[in-house]
Amino acid sequence: MSEITLGRYMWERIHQVGVDTIFGVPGDFNLQFLDAIFHVEGLQWVGNQNELNAAYAADGYGRIKGVPGCVVTTHGVGELSALNGIAGAMSEQVKLIHVVGQTTRAMQKNHLMIHHSIGDKPDHQQYNKASVPLRYAAAELWDIKTAPAEIDRVIRQALIQSGPVYIFLPLDLSAEKVSADLLKTPIDTSPKIDKEAQDKAVKAITTAITEAKHPAILVDTLVKRFGATAEARELVKQINVPFFSANMGKGVVDETDELYVGVWNGAVSTPGVVEAATKSDLVITLGYLNADTNSAGFSRKLDEAQTIHIKPFEVVVKGQSYSNIYIKSLLGALIAALPSRPQHQIAKPQLPPPRVPKDKDAAHLTQSQIWPTIENFLRSGDVIVSETGTSTFGLCDIAFPAHTRYEAQIYYGSIGWATAATLGVEMARKELAGDAGRTLLFTGDGSMALTIQEVGVMVKAGLKIVIFVINNAGYTIERLIWGARQPYNDIVPTSYAHLLPLYQHPSPSESYHRATTKAELDTILAKSSVQNPQNLQLVEMVVDKLDTSWRLASTLAGRGKETQEYLKNEGFTDTYGGWALGEDSGSRGGGVVWK
Amino acid sequence: MSEITLGRYMWERIHQVGVDTIFGVPGDFNLQFLDAIFHVEGLQWVGNQNELNAAYAADGYGRIKGVPGCVVTTHGVGELSALNGIAGAMSEQVKLIHVVGQTTRAMQKNHLMIHHSIGDKPDHQQYNKASVPLRYAAAELWDIKTAPAEIDRVIRQALIQSGPVYIFLPLDLSAEKVSADLLKTPIDTSPKIDKEAQDKAVKAITTAITEAKHPAILVDTLVKRFGATAEARELVKQINVPFFSANMGKGVVDETDELYVGVWNGAVSTPGVVEAATKSDLVITLGYLNADTNSAGFSRKLDEAQTIHIKPFEVVVKGQSYSNIYIKSLLGALIAALPSRPQHQIAKPQLPPPRVPKDKDAAHLTQSQIWPTIENFLRSGDVIVSETGTSTFGLCDIAFPAHTRYEAQIYYGSIGWATAATLGVEMARKELAGDAGRTLLFTGDGSMALTIQEVGVMVKAGLKIVIFVINNAGYTIERLIWGARQPYNDIVPTSYAHLLPLYQHPSPSESYHRATTKAELDTILAKSSVQNPQNLQLVEMVVDKLDTSWRLASTLAGRGKETQEYLKNEGFTDTYGGWALGEDSGSRGGGVVWK
Repeated sequence: MSEITLGRYMWERIHQVGVDTIFGVPGDFNLQFLDAIFHVEGLQWVGNQNELNAAYAADGYGRIKGVPGCVVTTHGVGELSALNGIAGAMSEQVKLIHVVGQTTRAMQKNHLMIHHSIGDKPDHQQYNKASVPLRYAAAELWDIKTAPAEIDRVIRQALIQSGPVYIFLPLDLSAEKVSADLLKTPIDTSPKIDKEAQDKAVKAITTAITEAKHPAILVDTLVKRFGATAEARELVKQINVPFFSANMGKGVVDETDELYVGVWNGAVSTPGVVEAATKSDLVITLGYLNADTNSAGFSRKLDEAQTIHIKPFEVVVKGQSYSNIYIKSLLGALIAALPSRPQHQIAKPQLPPPRVPKDKDAAHLTQSQIWPTIENFLRSGDVIVSETGTSTFGLCDIAFPAHTRYEAQIYYGSIGWATAATLGVEMARKELAGDAGRTLLFTGDGSMALTIQEVGVMVKAGLKIVIFVINNAGYTIERLIWGARQPYNDIVPTSYAHLLPLYQHPSPSESYHRATTKAELDTILAKSSVQNPQNLQLVEMVVDKLDTSWRLASTLAGRGKETQEYLKNEGFTDTYGGWALGEDSGSRGGGVVWK
Repeated sequence: MSEITLGRYMWERIHQVGVDTIFGVPGDFNLQFLDAIFHVEGLQWVGNQNELNAAYAADGYGRIKGVPGCVVTTHGVGELSALNGIAGAMSEQVKLIHVVGQTTRAMQKNHLMIHHSIGDKPDHQQYNKASVPLRYAAAELWDIKTAPAEIDRVIRQALIQSGPVYIFLPLDLSAEKVSADLLKTPIDTSPKIDKEAQDKAVKAITTAITEAKHPAILVDTLVKRFGATAEARELVKQINVPFFSANMGKGVVDETDELYVGVWNGAVSTPGVVEAATKSDLVITLGYLNADTNSAGFSRKLDEAQTIHIKPFEVVVKGQSYSNIYIKSLLGALIAALPSRPQHQIAKPQLPPPRVPKDKDAAHLTQSQIWPTIENFLRSGDVIVSETGTSTFGLCDIAFPAHTRYEAQIYYGSIGWATAATLGVEMARKELAGDAGRTLLFTGDGSMALTIQEVGVMVKAGLKIVIFVINNAGYTIERLIWGARQPYNDIVPTSYAHLLPLYQHPSPSESYHRATTKAELDTILAKSSVQNPQNLQLVEMVVDKLDTSWRLASTLAGRGKETQEYLKNEGFTDTYGGWALGEDSGSRGGGVVWK
């Protein structure tokens, strides 16, 4: 019987469930077992510039690959730095494994004042407590006899619950040996399903669909998170009725499909969308996540008596709940149960023609110019990452080509996430699709500042990402909420021309592009170096510091009287491309005319 | 009776205890009450590039100013990002107030899925739980009637306990009004002292000192943290016996004093120091913190039967404990009780002459050349910040001029701390001393990468910091521990010449300096722009990736057989400037000769 170290066992297990890249930062309580990563065939290490960035990268990886992203940190200092990234995965249900290299068991038992501790008789598990509310499970490894099973248990939980788990590994324990034969039995990653409940749910759903005259489907993000994208797409085709996506569900279904209407985002939707959606007598939601930022402040009103929710672990049909189901399995069963020929023939609703933004011919670049231009730049196979900020509101108006993937942290909304997550997204995209497709990041100067050093890792790894950074001299989304002219919404002025040379990009001048007008942006996007990047490309888009999309303006206008009054006092009525605040402004576009 | 908002009340209270600068990152649950900062006369806002950096900056501010550093973040995302910085303040007993802007009470009561939350019926206090083990107190504000007293209570705790406290402020509550008259009664920041215990302790100490033939004093960091530096200095003068500092206590007492011997760091001390220290029949420790990194792996052996510990809240005289004391008050009483004329006349021990490092004439810059050169650059009034890494080991061999302050996170040891903390250190130094003195940062390329964007804030604020960054192509301290040639110890190659232009430094070329030889470093340090900086100066010092000081080499050699064997296998025996590992190498210096 051959033996391997526990550290090796852990990495082998993580690799077995589909993880090929480990993110993290070395520290003296994980170094020795980092070595074992290099002993696992097909597993690679990507070091990050700090632990929060590493957690974000692992989150990005998990989103695209559909297996857990994995981040490794060291006791206390690294572990806590990563915590906000872990919480983001918890909020958005991203599979993630956080491996923490802990002090040795002897150090812990003797409460030694080892560096990274607190107090004069430190409890080395102090930091472990901090993540309790932010994880689904934790393997607190101590005994070599139980450690392999504990590792298996939490890996299973990461996959089934779709969220973060922890492995706490004392450094000395990582070197102890276990039988290599344990690797022969794969981890059981299949969920427990109540077949009877599933059958009942399927029956209730099929009946409701058959009885409905005018059903519609709303596709949302949890479909992706629970690995049910293929099933959702097939189901949508099979039911064959008009369908919508929520903001967070954008890109799950094919937006070029005949029956795709658009993003149904409650009060802040493209004109005609709400009318089309509310015409239906049955709405089927798939993987719905009803956050304020995914529903224009809870303004997407669903009549529960006319709604079917297909959730990760539950189905609710017109108020009747069926639990212990599992979305992927349920959708499969539903597809099998539905008649193969569509029961409904409903024409796609015609939306009114988009209104032309008043600043469409602005001399200086505006957001109303940017997003249609980007729309034309996109290609099938692209993976788009967008930051919580003006980008996510702008991208909401773009129709994606088929086979586009889209990731944005719309519920958790931690700025800085997008830049570091893009590193993981691109590693995962490459592992899945190689050179077919591009990873495109859309962020702003304010958000990018938080995690900007991760661009260095991208350059070092030779990744061919295209980064679009909107330079609007600060936190524009916050200026619109409060304090438009307050210094706290200003950021550090940044000359992006120096970012790529800082990290020794091989051709920094040719790979940095700056647009201050629509014509310049057009020219940049037409370059083959940007169309088909051979290394990292950075496109800076300079807009006015109060420029925004109509969608963001309208969202904020819906935030209640105080905000509306504030915005009016600040003179925003005249600056949103001429739309009155709160007016259903009727078009993509808007934005501030450059002064 | 005039009224002010609770937000204003909070800032006024924080300002009243001596805080003039607030660090943080705006977010939509703190914007409105950030406005109130600008209504408090003498209070300023310094926005940071991210929340961890903000927490570090507040920590640096707290260390120098002796009042709480203050950092403000937003619900969840910002709050958690800052957590590792808060834990560092907890570990190293730095006064700190973390203000968290929370969702409104209505949102919380209704468990709304507001962005930054977790789950479909979110508990908005989820994140609050994460910091429970990492703070001394928290004001969980909810009711306007009790809120002012709660704020006062935790500010008091930050000062008395010397550590971090939280103020959780729901956004809507921040706008409610309280009486401005409440500001007229200052917060009681005086600790409760058991006078009787203090008297007994003073008596026991004075008796022990009188009875001893050869006392010695060991000064450590908690003296500073509890605001007792002046008393410690006076006491040391009055007792008039040879005195030592621990690594973390460096700079507390005047190192130019006749009776100052050096850093007593157990097995890894400058030759002669241990012999001098252990000759004494009574050791008086002041503010002692016995962490592994502050004692060369617990190798500073103290015979408790011959030791007096004067701790923050306790005195232990030869094993006899006196509790409920307070170090500042105790030291004051002790000074008053001791005879004004010294009872002992002990000559300063003569240390053997320093051995000359074998690589002192190396063609390429080495650490054995750097630190003596830096020693000559230092001036009275300087504040030195050093990163956990090779810098802190190198600086340990420098004798500081009088009135030098030194800060390094030697116990908590979170890399990246130093760069961001330096921002806060310089803000505090300026508030205390204006243009008299300089703030000097010593860090390495690996550590600086974690928080590098904070240099932008320094540039924007026009701070005149001199940053020394050791470029050794990775995590050198970790290479020496494990994995010298493993890719996980490599970092992103960085061209520092582009760092200042990235952040629009007004004279980037004149302010960036690069030394690859000792002669180049000498030339740089002789420049008036570095001697008397008019804006931020960046000095890159390029050394071999395995170059280190004898002190770090010897510390690691003491780590036990496995590490020793590893180091020998890696060939380090020959590379530490010729010192055999574990040998009491006898001199500042050492380091790798450039290959």
